[in-house]
Amino acid sequence: MTAGEPPAPVASFIESRAATVPLGELERRIGAFQAQLRRDGVDAALVVQNADLYYLAGTVQQSHLLVPADGEPVLFVRKTLERAREESALPVVEPLPSLRQLGELVAERLGGPAAAVGLELDVLPVAQFRRYEELLPQARFVDVGAALVTQRAVKSPWEIDRIEAAALVAAAVFERIPDILHEGLTEAAFAGMVEAQARALGHQGIIRMRAFNGEMFYGQLLTGASGAVPSYLDTPLAGTGLSPAVAQGVSFKPIGRGEPVVFDFVPVVDGYTADFTRVFTLGPLPGELVRAYDVARRAQAAAAACARPGVTCRTVYETAVAVAHEAGLGAHFMGHGPAQVRFIGHGVGLELDELPVLSPNDRPLEEGMVFALEPKLVFPGLGAIGIENTWRVTADGIERLTRAAEEIVVLP
Amino acid sequence: MTAGEPPAPVASFIESRAATVPLGELERRIGAFQAQLRRDGVDAALVVQNADLYYLAGTVQQSHLLVPADGEPVLFVRKTLERAREESALPVVEPLPSLRQLGELVAERLGGPAAAVGLELDVLPVAQFRRYEELLPQARFVDVGAALVTQRAVKSPWEIDRIEAAALVAAAVFERIPDILHEGLTEAAFAGMVEAQARALGHQGIIRMRAFNGEMFYGQLLTGASGAVPSYLDTPLAGTGLSPAVAQGVSFKPIGRGEPVVFDFVPVVDGYTADFTRVFTLGPLPGELVRAYDVARRAQAAAAACARPGVTCRTVYETAVAVAHEAGLGAHFMGHGPAQVRFIGHGVGLELDELPVLSPNDRPLEEGMVFALEPKLVFPGLGAIGIENTWRVTADGIERLTRAAEEIVVLP
Repeated sequence: MTAGEPPAPVASFIESRAATVPLGELERRIGAFQAQLRRDGVDAALVVQNADLYYLAGTVQQSHLLVPADGEPVLFVRKTLERAREESALPVVEPLPSLRQLGELVAERLGGPAAAVGLELDVLPVAQFRRYEELLPQARFVDVGAALVTQRAVKSPWEIDRIEAAALVAAAVFERIPDILHEGLTEAAFAGMVEAQARALGHQGIIRMRAFNGEMFYGQLLTGASGAVPSYLDTPLAGTGLSPAVAQGVSFKPIGRGEPVVFDFVPVVDGYTADFTRVFTLGPLPGELVRAYDVARRAQAAAAACARPGVTCRTVYETAVAVAHEAGLGAHFMGHGPAQVRFIGHGVGLELDELPVLSPNDRPLEEGMVFALEPKLVFPGLGAIGIENTWRVTADGIERLTRAAEEIVVLP
Repeated sequence: MTAGEPPAPVASFIESRAATVPLGELERRIGAFQAQLRRDGVDAALVVQNADLYYLAGTVQQSHLLVPADGEPVLFVRKTLERAREESALPVVEPLPSLRQLGELVAERLGGPAAAVGLELDVLPVAQFRRYEELLPQARFVDVGAALVTQRAVKSPWEIDRIEAAALVAAAVFERIPDILHEGLTEAAFAGMVEAQARALGHQGIIRMRAFNGEMFYGQLLTGASGAVPSYLDTPLAGTGLSPAVAQGVSFKPIGRGEPVVFDFVPVVDGYTADFTRVFTLGPLPGELVRAYDVARRAQAAAAACARPGVTCRTVYETAVAVAHEAGLGAHFMGHGPAQVRFIGHGVGLELDELPVLSPNDRPLEEGMVFALEPKLVFPGLGAIGIENTWRVTADGIERLTRAAEEIVVLP
């Protein structure tokens, strides 16, 4: 195996991409967030979590981003100031020599102590929150995590470009699998070689998840019966994993003939993730799985046909589920038995677990949302099968961003 | 490159290892934790974070582990019950059909509502904590995160075996680097090939960190001037990274001749991490860096000579720092300028950022602690250089667990 050279579209993207999030992007994002702060009666927010910081400031340098409901945001930086100033297009980037000075610096910027201060209470640990209570004793704290997550669900064209770059990496890796996959390779060794391809193309490695205890490593590369083993994650597939300490993903199981090799792959480039699943096999698959794959593709087609702005997540979910039920495979759809999950897709962006969640909920789709749609079927003892693409919501439908061929790849 | 076959010691470990954490281990850990709960006046703890759950229950299945100050612990499992029962050696593993039932189930087990309930408040998000406040309205909540982290700093022989397995994986990958490293390869492509070797040997991929916003991917593989670029992490080395969205680790910089290739590698096997750094170069390095490497090794030797039970972290830290200062390299030690960090090592175990922290603090070393000692020197524009080993504290000193040769590896 040689080190991967980026295919032309990925290489041209890598060369052309902006090193920093453009100021216009940051201004639009901060403007929308400020409008929400005003609607919620919040005087100012302090944003500290990596994905949110990157979204609003274009950097993950150790910082507190002060966003007043009106006026100029200030990025207060602990480490490193120099790099934050290089990476962030925001005009005001100042040092925060010590956390003890936070209250004073915030009051100075706001012209007095803030009454209602927004924090990302959905992710901020209690101990750190209590420190803020001490540092800003006059503040009443309000959760702005939900507001940020809701806003981030709708992507700008600039963001969709990045998600497309991630999708291109997935496609490029997919193309190389026929040269890598062979009988007897362990799932772990196979995963390593596949991951090496992705890394050479600029996969950032780190996959961010918002959920507490959420963790994921390049996705799930599962073969045969492993694909049907559920676990702690809220996902249809999980795998046995290498030990109970991780309890998901690859194992030392050797890859055999005639079993599904489920390549559920999470490419992440420049902070942005896509999500992608295709199926390979060495020799023909059992007919039951081939028929189930056809059901997965029909569920995908039905969901894609109904999804457009204004349609609720529930409608898309129920449309896909109905296809599985009509085919008599409802009990296998999105997991089996008590491990069945009640969603068929999820938003992707700076985190893997974004909105919208394609589950029985009444959130309407909006133009610019980007989600992974992953109809999958699980057959205990036999394996899993399914498909996953990343889609963007257009003005009148949805468009597929992960463009690789969808047929099961049967290798000799 | 072929898929890695485990070297004999790793292979024999993989074959011999227990699939689950033995009951005796869990009983000793829970017993020690219960003694601390009693000392702290806590009636019962609810443990939910992955690393702590694995430590006390041997599984990361979605669970609440109820540990009463006295009596039998109960693992209440959301997903999946079957797998939790397989993975955990604890005798009482029960379903938690809905979080709403938590209060009732806890009261039933404790014979009434608990007054003082311990939670991991150092990691638990505020929003989730508020849900527990609703679910257990009669409880007063107490932080048990610090107690768990302190207890986990001292490892059992069983745990040290696992850390040694991780160290063996690092050594095996280290041995293969001369076949992989070549001029012109990008840092990213090189990292991918190295990581593939680790993966085939059973590296679990996921690296757990306790700190909010803590994130790390296989360590830091940094070459030349990249090695001297600091970032948001509390680490001496960080690297440019592939974009501001990650701002650490490898980049698309091609590897050149005569520059340090710093292989700072975090092996993680069966939940347990070691930490390891060696230096490679294609052709000779600048004399300044070679001299600095000698200083790093002397700082390591001085720290290792003084470290033993009862000696404080401060003493070990100051001993190493003194070596750098005496060599006239104090300004380059553990970073440069405002990015300099004030520690020379950190505990490793189920998380990468464990106790003890080898910084100016008065915690005494204890037998069974395991830490990485990482004297490193940074020369802006030129690169970083240094060494890192993982050590266990013995009855009368410390013993190195990462046993690879320490010389700079000069390749043609």
